[in-house]
Amino acid sequence: MNKIKFGIAGVGRMGSIHLENLVTKFQDAEVVAISDINPNTNALAQQFGVSKVYIQFEDLVNDKEVEAVVICSPTDFHANHIILAAKAGKQIFCEKPMDLSLETVKEVLDIVEEAGVKLMIAFNRRFDPNFTKVQQMVSQGKVGKPLVVKITSRDPGPPPISYIKSSGGLFLDMAIHDFDMARFVVNQEVEEVYATGAVFVDPEIGKAGDIDTAVTTLTFKNGTIAVIDNCRKAAYGYDQRLEVLGESGMCGSENKLHDNHFYYDANGIHGALPLDFFMDRYADSYFNEMKAFIECLKVDKTPPTTGHDGIMSLAIGLAAKKSLQENRVVKLSEIL
Amino acid sequence: MNKIKFGIAGVGRMGSIHLENLVTKFQDAEVVAISDINPNTNALAQQFGVSKVYIQFEDLVNDKEVEAVVICSPTDFHANHIILAAKAGKQIFCEKPMDLSLETVKEVLDIVEEAGVKLMIAFNRRFDPNFTKVQQMVSQGKVGKPLVVKITSRDPGPPPISYIKSSGGLFLDMAIHDFDMARFVVNQEVEEVYATGAVFVDPEIGKAGDIDTAVTTLTFKNGTIAVIDNCRKAAYGYDQRLEVLGESGMCGSENKLHDNHFYYDANGIHGALPLDFFMDRYADSYFNEMKAFIECLKVDKTPPTTGHDGIMSLAIGLAAKKSLQENRVVKLSEIL
Amino acid sequence: MNKIKFGIAGVGRMGSIHLENLVTKFQDAEVVAISDINPNTNALAQQFGVSKVYIQFEDLVNDKEVEAVVICSPTDFHANHIILAAKAGKQIFCEKPMDLSLETVKEVLDIVEEAGVKLMIAFNRRFDPNFTKVQQMVSQGKVGKPLVVKITSRDPGPPPISYIKSSGGLFLDMAIHDFDMARFVVNQEVEEVYATGAVFVDPEIGKAGDIDTAVTTLTFKNGTIAVIDNCRKAAYGYDQRLEVLGESGMCGSENKLHDNHFYYDANGIHGALPLDFFMDRYADSYFNEMKAFIECLKVDKTPPTTGHDGIMSLAIGLAAKKSLQENRVVKLSEIL
Amino acid sequence: MNKIKFGIAGVGRMGSIHLENLVTKFQDAEVVAISDINPNTNALAQQFGVSKVYIQFEDLVNDKEVEAVVICSPTDFHANHIILAAKAGKQIFCEKPMDLSLETVKEVLDIVEEAGVKLMIAFNRRFDPNFTKVQQMVSQGKVGKPLVVKITSRDPGPPPISYIKSSGGLFLDMAIHDFDMARFVVNQEVEEVYATGAVFVDPEIGKAGDIDTAVTTLTFKNGTIAVIDNCRKAAYGYDQRLEVLGESGMCGSENKLHDNHFYYDANGIHGALPLDFFMDRYADSYFNEMKAFIECLKVDKTPPTTGHDGIMSLAIGLAAKKSLQENRVVKLSEIL
Repeated sequence: MNKIKFGIAGVGRMGSIHLENLVTKFQDAEVVAISDINPNTNALAQQFGVSKVYIQFEDLVNDKEVEAVVICSPTDFHANHIILAAKAGKQIFCEKPMDLSLETVKEVLDIVEEAGVKLMIAFNRRFDPNFTKVQQMVSQGKVGKPLVVKITSRDPGPPPISYIKSSGGLFLDMAIHDFDMARFVVNQEVEEVYATGAVFVDPEIGKAGDIDTAVTTLTFKNGTIAVIDNCRKAAYGYDQRLEVLGESGMCGSENKLHDNHFYYDANGIHGALPLDFFMDRYADSYFNEMKAFIECLKVDKTPPTTGHDGIMSLAIGLAAKKSLQENRVVKLSEIL
Repeated sequence: MNKIKFGIAGVGRMGSIHLENLVTKFQDAEVVAISDINPNTNALAQQFGVSKVYIQFEDLVNDKEVEAVVICSPTDFHANHIILAAKAGKQIFCEKPMDLSLETVKEVLDIVEEAGVKLMIAFNRRFDPNFTKVQQMVSQGKVGKPLVVKITSRDPGPPPISYIKSSGGLFLDMAIHDFDMARFVVNQEVEEVYATGAVFVDPEIGKAGDIDTAVTTLTFKNGTIAVIDNCRKAAYGYDQRLEVLGESGMCGSENKLHDNHFYYDANGIHGALPLDFFMDRYADSYFNEMKAFIECLKVDKTPPTTGHDGIMSLAIGLAAKKSLQENRVVKLSEIL
Repeated sequence: MNKIKFGIAGVGRMGSIHLENLVTKFQDAEVVAISDINPNTNALAQQFGVSKVYIQFEDLVNDKEVEAVVICSPTDFHANHIILAAKAGKQIFCEKPMDLSLETVKEVLDIVEEAGVKLMIAFNRRFDPNFTKVQQMVSQGKVGKPLVVKITSRDPGPPPISYIKSSGGLFLDMAIHDFDMARFVVNQEVEEVYATGAVFVDPEIGKAGDIDTAVTTLTFKNGTIAVIDNCRKAAYGYDQRLEVLGESGMCGSENKLHDNHFYYDANGIHGALPLDFFMDRYADSYFNEMKAFIECLKVDKTPPTTGHDGIMSLAIGLAAKKSLQENRVVKLSEIL
Repeated sequence: MNKIKFGIAGVGRMGSIHLENLVTKFQDAEVVAISDINPNTNALAQQFGVSKVYIQFEDLVNDKEVEAVVICSPTDFHANHIILAAKAGKQIFCEKPMDLSLETVKEVLDIVEEAGVKLMIAFNRRFDPNFTKVQQMVSQGKVGKPLVVKITSRDPGPPPISYIKSSGGLFLDMAIHDFDMARFVVNQEVEEVYATGAVFVDPEIGKAGDIDTAVTTLTFKNGTIAVIDNCRKAAYGYDQRLEVLGESGMCGSENKLHDNHFYYDANGIHGALPLDFFMDRYADSYFNEMKAFIECLKVDKTPPTTGHDGIMSLAIGLAAKKSLQENRVVKLSEIL
């Protein structure tokens, strides 16, 4: 059996995870090269037995041995890196989002299509075992037609203001995962968006032109309604829940907790908080998404999360932004 | 100690509950008269030791012995019965809603105010121990300022179409409880309303001019956002949940289940469904609301749920209806 | 339909509950007489419309109108009251235990049998909806043959020392309910008993010759093992749980909580404690056991909890006491 | 910083886990050699970058570079391997049990003590985050003095009969983990043991001279009572629970489930089963125990689980066996 030869672009937080998973958990993959401008990359490469370390992404994509690239560079570079990789004929796994501009994303996807390579966008939450289970129950008809989808997605605390300024804001950076999740479980496209929000957590977020708390209602083409509540700060940890009311039942998933202890005293029953670090909470999903990508390469099929998914979530995010600004319902057709 | 002497108008489902509670559970109250057009009322009166039974409400309010009336007649009669009772100088406990017309309600309240009697509107859910606990936690500041309130309120099955036609529809009949609950926990007034909905459960409901599934977003004057999802049918029972995200924590209440059994087999872990009959689910609340009313009479203070609460919930319901029809955000000031 | 005419002997805590239930919740029963040495009984009788109040139990059993007696007198009187009632031809519902002496109980049952009246012993926990559900699941074969039964039964706090001295102690007063519960779910008789225990809660309990904490293992004739842990004090409330491991699954029931609220803050997830007053915890069971008794009278069948159940639980309690004293396994045949 | 150089003896199921953890998760450790009679070991060594592969354990302990050995060979070899490693001056981490003979274990520990090396016995469950949390709560006094400890430990299915014959049986192979857990949370030594059991799961287990279901009661020197229920088969998965009743509260830990999904239909509420593979259930513990061992080596302190822990759990197991055979309470002093 030939192992698929990977190159990883950017071995920061996410890149390191993909590196460790690829090296230690997949028999049918190997990492042959890394590119990163950070000079400490060599030690990491050595620990995981990667022989080639490049400073420039260009060198990585020009490495003949590399068959597939995992793009974990900063968001600003994603579009360019995808284009370079596609033109070099590499299979592509890219962290979300591709870009904050709908036009750029469309251009990128045209180039990818022309190049005939595969592109998987890392909407990792689809690969979380809890959410996967919910989506499977819905798609197997266990609750009948989905009527109302409820997603709660709250961070344990806000990112630095500098990040907020460059990230595209709550709808494009944070809620975009939830918009994708809603599309995933409903398996339909959105027609209308209404968003309301406020600055409760930190006035600096407001000064940066963003909000930190929002409720977004999505109406799908088949009538299903999804409602998503986001907040940049939940004092009790990282709150990630999903619930689907269907014609014949309800399904969903609860938070993952730090542990399963219980404690009873004279004041009440007490238990552990939700996991509050996204890398712990979604650890399984990073393995599972890579497994799915490798399978697509091996049997030559379309990845489960495509450029189309990237476009649609971005469009919903832009519609939510517009809805908030204009205090009205926005049709997705106004955006796309 | 003098017992407060009650007359009960209408001893159908709700009237019977108040009758039993007043007779068997309150030492400081007695029921001296009942009015009901149903000829079977005598047997019920006898069982609970009530000596006077009237056919006409007018006779009940003219009975000198009666100090307080409990109005459980059909909704259409509420306004008229309140007016008659107020003019007769009786203290008044009335099932919600007072009326479906905002104008009528305003007129009724003017008459009550002029008469100087107390009027308590039976928003019983405020007296459910679970919801009371949540409201207390919020008002004690245990979660800090409320940011996002989520209410799930789903019936086990739809009422008869004839009822839907006369009830005012999903927003005025069903969601009105939830609008009141949102006001109760946030302790502020609503500024804007956005509602979306659909007919999923039964096309006959659509033909009757109503919807059966809705998501309503309320924006309060202080910025708090409440989101309410209603459905006329939850295949798994009566779903009544509340959740409040605050600056420093979250609180809420889960459903009450039929029992606390668990069952593990090779397929999973299984447990009991939520209570599915509102009279079981809210049994405690009927006792508690009457207890609160009696206390107000004894110490001469304003009831916890007033005519103002009746007006505001009705107005939110009318705004939600308008929002759905016009597919836009509606300000409450457009309605009031 | 003829109503069954009840006399209630003793209207303290338990007697009052049966009085209220019989008067307000059963159409096919009426309470015609009460006996109690307490002079305040008249007010209670009046509230519930009972016309005859006796001081002496003898007058109650000699009242021709009385068809069935509910014996809620102190335990010391139970045996004598049952005998008098049986001889007067009354149907009998008696609070547990019949007596602390196995011999006396046997004599009482002989007299009852001779009289040909029904005798139901109020092992109320069998009528708790949670435990009923568990027993039904077991008897329906949902977990296969029961292998291991676990019962946790802990009081919120110890009774007065004076009560402990006269009650028969932890095994005969408190654990006897759990011994009956084990027999109820296993549906077999016990063969061997091993008990160990300690005085942890209050040294005064030790001085009174009793223990306050115990673990008892019962081996049934079919091999099923039951393990029961009792404690006179659980700082967090009244802990009443049951679990049955069977060949093909597990079933059981959790505690009933004060309410269903949840509260998340930076320290953890918090919820309500178990109900801590037995009359709240088992309120449903008092209604259900009386309902079962009335049905037996109406269709002339054997009550679900008989004198035999009273004997067997008492014998297990005596065996447990002996096991603790002699630090060895005791066969039930040594006792019976 | 110098990395600690490890040699791993036996890279079957457990050895592979320690290998992967040591290589990929510890910066301060490296694996320099492996010994295993299996010829496939080379591929594994290559994947994890281990250069030296030995067939014989003797070669591993004679390798000068190796500072610490991880003994994952079959149980029969443990005693001999510990002795060889101790004599070679290596630090030792050994899978439990050291041996099934109390005498042999004592001899081994004498040799280890003489050699002055560290020996850690892999009672991995102490390092499970759930159980660690419970033990911490108890040792911090959060429940006061522990009164009653309850441990449920049930396998998803029985091992092969051949394994049962050689393993020492239910008490020495399976329950020994739970005996250690009880000692861990109570932090005292056991005085008396009573065990009862049966063959319910498979008659072949009985023919092999073992039982498959047991309830064991341990009485500690300070009076604390622990009760442990074991079964070789739980149809619903691997059931691993712990509960501690203390003077001022209760603490414990629930099972870890496959996922956190929920599903409501007209029949009930349904959720995921407990994890049923011990390597998934206790994955964290394998990492944590190795972390603890490495820390002991780095700061030169006694390991948290010592040879003494190995002896005591073995003695309790032998006492339980004797109690079952002789149907009586057995003092630990009869065994040690």
